[in-house]
Amino acid sequence: MRAISAERLQQQVEFLVEIDKLKTVMRRTDLISADRRENDAEHSWHLAVAAMVLAEYANDPIDLSKVIKMVLIHDLVEIDAGDTYCYDVEGAKDKEEREQRAADRLFAILPQDQGKEFRKLWAEFEEGATAEAKFAAALDRFQPVLHNLRTDGRSWSQHGIVRQQVAKRIAPIADGSARLWHYISRLIAEAVAAGILKEK
Amino acid sequence: MRAISAERLQQQVEFLVEIDKLKTVMRRTDLISADRRENDAEHSWHLAVAAMVLAEYANDPIDLSKVIKMVLIHDLVEIDAGDTYCYDVEGAKDKEEREQRAADRLFAILPQDQGKEFRKLWAEFEEGATAEAKFAAALDRFQPVLHNLRTDGRSWSQHGIVRQQVAKRIAPIADGSARLWHYISRLIAEAVAAGILKEK
Repeated sequence: MRAISAERLQQQVEFLVEIDKLKTVMRRTDLISADRRENDAEHSWHLAVAAMVLAEYANDPIDLSKVIKMVLIHDLVEIDAGDTYCYDVEGAKDKEEREQRAADRLFAILPQDQGKEFRKLWAEFEEGATAEAKFAAALDRFQPVLHNLRTDGRSWSQHGIVRQQVAKRIAPIADGSARLWHYISRLIAEAVAAGILKEK
Repeated sequence: MRAISAERLQQQVEFLVEIDKLKTVMRRTDLISADRRENDAEHSWHLAVAAMVLAEYANDPIDLSKVIKMVLIHDLVEIDAGDTYCYDVEGAKDKEEREQRAADRLFAILPQDQGKEFRKLWAEFEEGATAEAKFAAALDRFQPVLHNLRTDGRSWSQHGIVRQQVAKRIAPIADGSARLWHYISRLIAEAVAAGILKEK
C-alpha cells in the first residue's frame, strides 16, 4: 500500500459526495424511455457510453479515454451555475462567468494536483479546440436531438423551438463528426416534413 | 469520412436509444443530495468519476480507461433483469440466469463486433478475476456504503440491514483496494458506535 495521507483521501471522498448533486440538476430534455426530464448525471453517463459506441465516426483520430473523461465531468459546473438551456439567449450572457466561479469552487475540493487536472480537462472541453473536445461537443449536441426525435419533439414543442434554432445548434457537430452531422441533419429534415419540428 | 454502412450506424443509435431505460431502473440506495432513490444511470456515472478520482488506490496496476468503460456498462443488463438488492438472498438465486438472458438481447442490438466487445467487458466485470474487474467491483461496493453513511444509514434502516450484512458485502473491496477497504471499515465501525448501523 502506498503511503497516502488520510487528508488526501478525505478530500477525494468529499468531492465524490459533492458531485452527487449533479443528479439533481435538471435539463430541458426529456428521457426517451419515460415522461420526465433528464438530469445532468444521466446525461453525462449517456454521453460517455455514446463515446464508446460512436468513436469510429470522429473526424480526426481521438484519444477515446480522454473524450470519455471529458464528457463525464463536462457538466459538473452546473451544480453551482445551473443548466442554461441551449436556446436561452439571456442566460447565455453570464453563463461563462457563472461556470468559471463554479469551477473555482468545485475543483478546489480535490487534492491540488487532481483539481488542476480536472479543471484542465474541463477547460479543454469548453475551448473546443482539440479533436477530443470537438468530438465530445458533437456528442453533447447529438444526444438531446436524438431524444427529441424519439419523443415526437416533446421538449422542442414545449419550449417553442423551431428548425432554424436546431440547425444552428447542431452545426458544430460537423466539426467533430461529419458522419453524425449528416445523419442527424437528415433526421431533422424528416422531422420537419412530418410536422414534428416547425419552421420559423 | 470512412465508408460505413448506414445499417451499422442505425444499430448503434438503436442501442443508445435502448439503454436510455437504465435511467428508469431504480436502486435501493438513496441519493446523498436528495431524499429519493438513485437510478442505475446515475450510479454508473458516479462510479466512473470515482474511478478517475480514486484510481491511485487500486492494489495492482490498472488500465483506468478499461475500469471506466466497465463501470459505465456494468449494470446495463438490469434494464431487463432489474436491480437485485445486494442483500436479497432469494433474488440472488436466479440473478445470473436473468442477467445472461439480458446480455444476450441487449448486446445483440449493437453491430456484431461491438456487441462482442461490450459483452466481453461485462463478462470480465462479472467474473471479477482481473485487476480492473476487482477495482471496479470495489468502487461498486464502496459507493452505496458512502451514500448510506452520508444519509444516516437511511436505506440500511429502511431495509433492516445490520452490520454483519454490510461487513460481508464490503469484504471484496479489499481485493481491489486495501486502502479503500480500511477507510470504509473504519467509517462503518464509527456508524455502529453512533447507532446508525445496528448489530444483528
